[in-house]
Amino acid sequence: MKQVELTALFARVQAGELAPEEAARIAQGFEDLGFAKVDHDRRQRTGFPEVIYGAGKTPGQIVAIAKNLRDRGAVNILCTRVSPQAAARLSDELGAELHELARAAVVAPTPIEGKGRVLVLCAGTSDLPVADEAALTAALMGAAVERVSDAGVAGIHRLIAHENSLHEANVIVCVAGMEGALPSVVAGLTDRPIIAVPTSVGYGTSFGGVAALLAMLNSCGSGVSVVNIDNGFGAGYQAALINRLAL
Amino acid sequence: MKQVELTALFARVQAGELAPEEAARIAQGFEDLGFAKVDHDRRQRTGFPEVIYGAGKTPGQIVAIAKNLRDRGAVNILCTRVSPQAAARLSDELGAELHELARAAVVAPTPIEGKGRVLVLCAGTSDLPVADEAALTAALMGAAVERVSDAGVAGIHRLIAHENSLHEANVIVCVAGMEGALPSVVAGLTDRPIIAVPTSVGYGTSFGGVAALLAMLNSCGSGVSVVNIDNGFGAGYQAALINRLAL
Amino acid sequence: MKQVELTALFARVQAGELAPEEAARIAQGFEDLGFAKVDHDRRQRTGFPEVIYGAGKTPGQIVAIAKNLRDRGAVNILCTRVSPQAAARLSDELGAELHELARAAVVAPTPIEGKGRVLVLCAGTSDLPVADEAALTAALMGAAVERVSDAGVAGIHRLIAHENSLHEANVIVCVAGMEGALPSVVAGLTDRPIIAVPTSVGYGTSFGGVAALLAMLNSCGSGVSVVNIDNGFGAGYQAALINRLAL
Amino acid sequence: MKQVELTALFARVQAGELAPEEAARIAQGFEDLGFAKVDHDRRQRTGFPEVIYGAGKTPGQIVAIAKNLRDRGAVNILCTRVSPQAAARLSDELGAELHELARAAVVAPTPIEGKGRVLVLCAGTSDLPVADEAALTAALMGAAVERVSDAGVAGIHRLIAHENSLHEANVIVCVAGMEGALPSVVAGLTDRPIIAVPTSVGYGTSFGGVAALLAMLNSCGSGVSVVNIDNGFGAGYQAALINRLAL
Amino acid sequence: MKQVELTALFARVQAGELAPEEAARIAQGFEDLGFAKVDHDRRQRTGFPEVIYGAGKTPGQIVAIAKNLRDRGAVNILCTRVSPQAAARLSDELGAELHELARAAVVAPTPIEGKGRVLVLCAGTSDLPVADEAALTAALMGAAVERVSDAGVAGIHRLIAHENSLHEANVIVCVAGMEGALPSVVAGLTDRPIIAVPTSVGYGTSFGGVAALLAMLNSCGSGVSVVNIDNGFGAGYQAALINRLAL
Amino acid sequence: MKQVELTALFARVQAGELAPEEAARIAQGFEDLGFAKVDHDRRQRTGFPEVIYGAGKTPGQIVAIAKNLRDRGAVNILCTRVSPQAAARLSDELGAELHELARAAVVAPTPIEGKGRVLVLCAGTSDLPVADEAALTAALMGAAVERVSDAGVAGIHRLIAHENSLHEANVIVCVAGMEGALPSVVAGLTDRPIIAVPTSVGYGTSFGGVAALLAMLNSCGSGVSVVNIDNGFGAGYQAALINRLAL
Amino acid sequence: MKQVELTALFARVQAGELAPEEAARIAQGFEDLGFAKVDHDRRQRTGFPEVIYGAGKTPGQIVAIAKNLRDRGAVNILCTRVSPQAAARLSDELGAELHELARAAVVAPTPIEGKGRVLVLCAGTSDLPVADEAALTAALMGAAVERVSDAGVAGIHRLIAHENSLHEANVIVCVAGMEGALPSVVAGLTDRPIIAVPTSVGYGTSFGGVAALLAMLNSCGSGVSVVNIDNGFGAGYQAALINRLAL
Amino acid sequence: MKQVELTALFARVQAGELAPEEAARIAQGFEDLGFAKVDHDRRQRTGFPEVIYGAGKTPGQIVAIAKNLRDRGAVNILCTRVSPQAAARLSDELGAELHELARAAVVAPTPIEGKGRVLVLCAGTSDLPVADEAALTAALMGAAVERVSDAGVAGIHRLIAHENSLHEANVIVCVAGMEGALPSVVAGLTDRPIIAVPTSVGYGTSFGGVAALLAMLNSCGSGVSVVNIDNGFGAGYQAALINRLAL
Repeated sequence: MKQVELTALFARVQAGELAPEEAARIAQGFEDLGFAKVDHDRRQRTGFPEVIYGAGKTPGQIVAIAKNLRDRGAVNILCTRVSPQAAARLSDELGAELHELARAAVVAPTPIEGKGRVLVLCAGTSDLPVADEAALTAALMGAAVERVSDAGVAGIHRLIAHENSLHEANVIVCVAGMEGALPSVVAGLTDRPIIAVPTSVGYGTSFGGVAALLAMLNSCGSGVSVVNIDNGFGAGYQAALINRLAL
Repeated sequence: MKQVELTALFARVQAGELAPEEAARIAQGFEDLGFAKVDHDRRQRTGFPEVIYGAGKTPGQIVAIAKNLRDRGAVNILCTRVSPQAAARLSDELGAELHELARAAVVAPTPIEGKGRVLVLCAGTSDLPVADEAALTAALMGAAVERVSDAGVAGIHRLIAHENSLHEANVIVCVAGMEGALPSVVAGLTDRPIIAVPTSVGYGTSFGGVAALLAMLNSCGSGVSVVNIDNGFGAGYQAALINRLAL
Repeated sequence: MKQVELTALFARVQAGELAPEEAARIAQGFEDLGFAKVDHDRRQRTGFPEVIYGAGKTPGQIVAIAKNLRDRGAVNILCTRVSPQAAARLSDELGAELHELARAAVVAPTPIEGKGRVLVLCAGTSDLPVADEAALTAALMGAAVERVSDAGVAGIHRLIAHENSLHEANVIVCVAGMEGALPSVVAGLTDRPIIAVPTSVGYGTSFGGVAALLAMLNSCGSGVSVVNIDNGFGAGYQAALINRLAL
Repeated sequence: MKQVELTALFARVQAGELAPEEAARIAQGFEDLGFAKVDHDRRQRTGFPEVIYGAGKTPGQIVAIAKNLRDRGAVNILCTRVSPQAAARLSDELGAELHELARAAVVAPTPIEGKGRVLVLCAGTSDLPVADEAALTAALMGAAVERVSDAGVAGIHRLIAHENSLHEANVIVCVAGMEGALPSVVAGLTDRPIIAVPTSVGYGTSFGGVAALLAMLNSCGSGVSVVNIDNGFGAGYQAALINRLAL
Repeated sequence: MKQVELTALFARVQAGELAPEEAARIAQGFEDLGFAKVDHDRRQRTGFPEVIYGAGKTPGQIVAIAKNLRDRGAVNILCTRVSPQAAARLSDELGAELHELARAAVVAPTPIEGKGRVLVLCAGTSDLPVADEAALTAALMGAAVERVSDAGVAGIHRLIAHENSLHEANVIVCVAGMEGALPSVVAGLTDRPIIAVPTSVGYGTSFGGVAALLAMLNSCGSGVSVVNIDNGFGAGYQAALINRLAL
Repeated sequence: MKQVELTALFARVQAGELAPEEAARIAQGFEDLGFAKVDHDRRQRTGFPEVIYGAGKTPGQIVAIAKNLRDRGAVNILCTRVSPQAAARLSDELGAELHELARAAVVAPTPIEGKGRVLVLCAGTSDLPVADEAALTAALMGAAVERVSDAGVAGIHRLIAHENSLHEANVIVCVAGMEGALPSVVAGLTDRPIIAVPTSVGYGTSFGGVAALLAMLNSCGSGVSVVNIDNGFGAGYQAALINRLAL
Repeated sequence: MKQVELTALFARVQAGELAPEEAARIAQGFEDLGFAKVDHDRRQRTGFPEVIYGAGKTPGQIVAIAKNLRDRGAVNILCTRVSPQAAARLSDELGAELHELARAAVVAPTPIEGKGRVLVLCAGTSDLPVADEAALTAALMGAAVERVSDAGVAGIHRLIAHENSLHEANVIVCVAGMEGALPSVVAGLTDRPIIAVPTSVGYGTSFGGVAALLAMLNSCGSGVSVVNIDNGFGAGYQAALINRLAL
Repeated sequence: MKQVELTALFARVQAGELAPEEAARIAQGFEDLGFAKVDHDRRQRTGFPEVIYGAGKTPGQIVAIAKNLRDRGAVNILCTRVSPQAAARLSDELGAELHELARAAVVAPTPIEGKGRVLVLCAGTSDLPVADEAALTAALMGAAVERVSDAGVAGIHRLIAHENSLHEANVIVCVAGMEGALPSVVAGLTDRPIIAVPTSVGYGTSFGGVAALLAMLNSCGSGVSVVNIDNGFGAGYQAALINRLAL
């Protein structure tokens, strides 16, 4: 919290508009729920509210954190990797907007005008959930998002048909499983930064996405970096950060 | 090669300024040296000349490719992972500028004014060669580069002392070996995109950089993507692409 | 069993207070239940009764071992990794105290005054079960335990806010999943021995905790040792041994 | 050895043209040199003489086996993975033709008219030694061999320029290191069987060719099978077998 | 689509036989269903219709793609790795022929005369599902298929009893789990190309088929190449391509 | 640096005893040599001077850091993993005491009375270098060190003969390669904390110490934690920290 | 089948005692059930009937093979890794004797006098299923079997209490999970051959038994060999072979 | 040392034949050289003197241990994995018999009549060093050893030609690299126990012998156990133990 904000806070206490306990809580920047410290300051620091990673949290914990953020004024609160149980409760109790394929929910959904251009490129149908998570994340962070799906390297002409899109985006999120070759080919067709997302799509020696990950890390194309397997959120988040630089 | 450029080319042939064979070679965009196809078109497409990856090429091959690029007008031609033998020949025969620690050489070195800001952050002394490669690459690609070294997480106050730099850069290249924790900590201190570079520094269970790579891929911080172990070039290249978006 | 204890045992037999068969059983130090040899001597050797590792044992076996220990006078008998079925039976049949999150049960729970100070530090909400197991174990072994949770490296100021705790403990148990960076940062802030516990929290390239384990083994901080993935018991146990040295 | 050949052999002994010991040796089909059993029968069975795998054999052993084969009438005897020492001795003592890049030697080199068409496609300059081994093997086995090099996926137009070759070959050997994406792209452009050869070209997470191997095994393209890392010989050999089927 | 076909298409439009929209769709070669681009052109290019890989697709998606292919005239449309749910719907809604063991379905099944000879050799009873997938695929692609099962190396005489079959086939698909030794032994008995398929049959250090895969990649026999673990489809497909060369 | 020390520093400047520049350098706590920031404050914080990890540093860098520490008053400055070249220069230029087997050097060696008791237990002769590094480190940190070598589990009576030592130490460093079983056996014989050090001694499936590491992490004995492969320094350091707690 | 047996077979046909078809079946040595070739000859060759590995076979297949063997006169037919469903059918339809813990069934159970001595040594309670499978196998193969359980290395005195058994056995099967240290300690106490069986007991870095396997392969004790993880059958089988040599 | 031997020792001291210090040394059973405890008692316990594992020991240490054993009366002292330097010193100073291929030396070589039969079977020429180590070890331990080399599975008739040997041996040591299939085939041809030795022969995905190791652990043949990669000594040692049981 910056000096000027702190001063305003004290002024409100002095004016009797705010109880000292509440003011102290706000000044601290986060609120301790016992099982989690909710970071209210984050929105001010980054422009985005805290994102709730749902895996390993109970539905009750997720709802409580989301409610706490919403009650303090946050909108478009993203909850990722939420179980069907958690999604149902978020919808029932907080009116969250659900994104089933992406396993995500948005609490206090609010229209936001997308700016710039993030292209989310997807190799196959099975990769769609990860691509959806990336696209949703980037959109919530303020990016205009274009989608191109089913553009795997085994039918290279389908990709080349979208060559214009490869040049018009500020940054490209490239999602692929199996042999993970798509980012290498894309890197040869554009000079935009590419964030590659390996997916766990495949069997046998795909080793749950490791084959695709290794291919992407060893890409002979330039301008490619990589996130964790199935980490659509991470790719969409970084893409939005990069896209924002270009505005 | 675009239509207008092709037309100009034909005009020069018509005017007798250019032999048809030479014009055909230029129109093709690359030149075949037998052991390599040199990509002259690339500079026009991306603004950067082709980079020569030196590993697995003989000194003679590297010199020939670099000479070919230079003779066609390219400047600041980067040769990475060059052996001492190759470096010596590049220096002797082409007057290349050598960067020993980064194992790199620059043929036809030409001053270039760095713009924007790329921060290259380095965890320990042993990670310096990789950081140097990243910094050199970004600089040749037109970025202004700031360096902060020896800022590993085991002495966190040394990093916090540079917090301003973390906010002023457009993009951060974060180089670390051993447990590879630096990007996670940095991601908590800034909202700039971070390109993490694991290095092979360490022993035993560092497995040649795998420990650092896994840590970076699993970073709990947002906005982090990763390149191959010791791939300073790849990180610097993508950082320059991102930095250019912000200009 | 020491000489003086054996002598007392024989005296009780001579006095007709103890049947020879029972005395022989006691002298042997353990009792054979067929599926397990219960170690009664252990409490005398170490001050702690035998701990029952529940995984791979049937509920009936766990109950029988715990009952046998209790009937011979042991208190605060810890059963780890007990299934819900085993926990229910331990509660129903032996009145055990259940610790659901830690997947543990304590048979014959008895108040014990904690001494010294063991700090159990936890990176994220999902790591809580492992941290709970560590804290429970250390407490049952006689240590005073302090808890600090949700102190992951991506928000370093939350950790620094607890810097005093890092100095006041005799030993620190540091629990983290994902990139496992917490022990490295803590090691730079204190000179207390740190026992790092990697957890299986994460996905994709966390490989069930391997990423965190490798980070901890490669920590650039000094004074860090590591236990098996999710082994809260082992960390709590060693921490209690170390804490006892400081009393 | 077939019945009719055995009969002829006995006839020569009867006629006094051949000593019984020598005839027995020929009937056995192989000759025991102590350190190796040389398989003379193989040429009759398969049309190709035995190939000498040079790794792990002393120069003396290689020379002795090759000489034994030559003295019994074999030509175009291929020795793979020969050390420079072994190559020198094969050249000096047996007049072998050396193929330095492929690390191979041919004893009793004899012109052979290549038939059909095997295409050996190579992603990068560093993959050339493996491609050379494949091409040499296929040629010695009777195939007409076409070479296309430096056709990696990061510059996909270079590959598409050779699309005709992809259709004219009976079978394609596809050699690539790093991310090993070439076979997937090629499989989308042709319906010819593709034998993919991963190479150990790369660093860091290429893990000596494992990244390329996994990509090839997980190819989303149809009609691709894979051989061991750097096994140009194996790919060339199988390609020749397949090519022969098409004659 | 070739020039002559395009011309015919325009003629039909001119003649009023075809709406321009429909003609455009046909000219494009594929049809976009949103979740997938169905490749109608493929049958013309390769002689085989597109194969539907069922894993990771919903039953509804599989049915829709298959129906789309069938409605455009394709027959013997192979759907692999279909769940029981998808199989039931394909049977109910499209009258597909189900191959339970092979986890496959064939839509619009149509008799086809097998030509040439593909031998599908199987080491043990547990490997049968993978062998069935290979045999079904090759048969649908037009090959005459011979089956030999239960011919593992631990009873080598059972294999030798089928030696004739090893010579009469154009190509051999060799399916084995556990130690994966069968292709090596077979390679010593025949000079036909062998496509080895490792299966996930085994436990412990079979690591889900990795042991068999490594054995096959390291085969000391010549003429062996390998596909992904349990990839009966891939082996059958390539075998059919090779078999076709021999017709 | 604490308040009182800072005050004293300013007093010395006021008194003209110290130049302001020098005072500023001292107040900062570390000194920047360009390639390293030497941490002079560390000795005050922890009682031990900074340790110089020699791997990946040039001899010149090591000498410069050691000299800088010595010139500011540090004694018993430990340099680990020093190459023979670095050791020679440390000896020649700074009079360092060399410990060849442990690959260590001590600059400004100064007698120090060992207190408490650290037992360094070693399984085999080949493990001695790692054990030496551990013992040297613990001794320089102020611990009295007892050594027991060649006490591997294949001759368990040799270990039992030292059972008294297992009880008299405050903490035990247990060094073993190959199957790494020693800590498990020791844990059954004592209730002292055990720091296990896997070594890279072995071949084949020892995988450079991984087999020993895994055994130690999976020890069925209680009270065992583990450090990186061959990390004698880390074990000795933590043992000294623990030993100090017991004084 | 030996010459004398074949002659007797023909004699029985000549005498009209046996139909030619049945005689041919017997002469072939195995019977083809379609999904399996039942090896009747095996009992004559080795003294043991064929063992039925149940994993990956349907209950119906297992019952059919067992029935076929029994109907041809085999007794003590061992079925390993049978599912509860298969076990129930074997019991219901063939009166098989079930061994639940060992997941085995014995069809046509027949008393057999054990000879010699095989010791099956087991580290912990969770390892009992694997030890049971080993003991049952060895007993069915004619060995007298001694059992010692719960003798893990963390309480070495429990093992030493059984030192006599270690000397009296002809061969020792040594079953252990977790760190797998038991065979090393046993090898130091006896000169009998030891067959070590790693089990999948453990969690985290036990990697499903890999930690124990590696420890056993790297045993510093002599006279130890290893079988696959959880392969009690294989150990018991080889132990019976070795025990038979000593009779 | 047994009671009766100890009594005799004391008698010699009483008689003045032995100094008390020397008697104490003998009673202890081993002699402490500082860097190693030489186990003189071992020969009495097992019939074989201690074997010196040369890897990781200096030539001086090896010579000292061997000399110590020889001076106390041991013969046929086996030193394994000796470097050329160590071998030279053992030969020069102790007159050791060198076995270059097996990297072994025998100090105080003494004729010994081999009994029983151990068959050492070797797949290829490159596996000979490991087979030699196995054969030498078994022979020194008193076994008659038969050798069959170059009998890999790719030419199965060469193996079948030696079928008699497979039945006449008491135990078979089976040495193979690459795909390691030999033990599986041999297990189908004999009922003798087989000790499989994977070798590091191969490249690429042989991973230094891991492919062969996995194949051997997953052998579908019965009666096979496995030792560490390249551990000819261990296999020969266990084979000799088993062979001795059959005498």
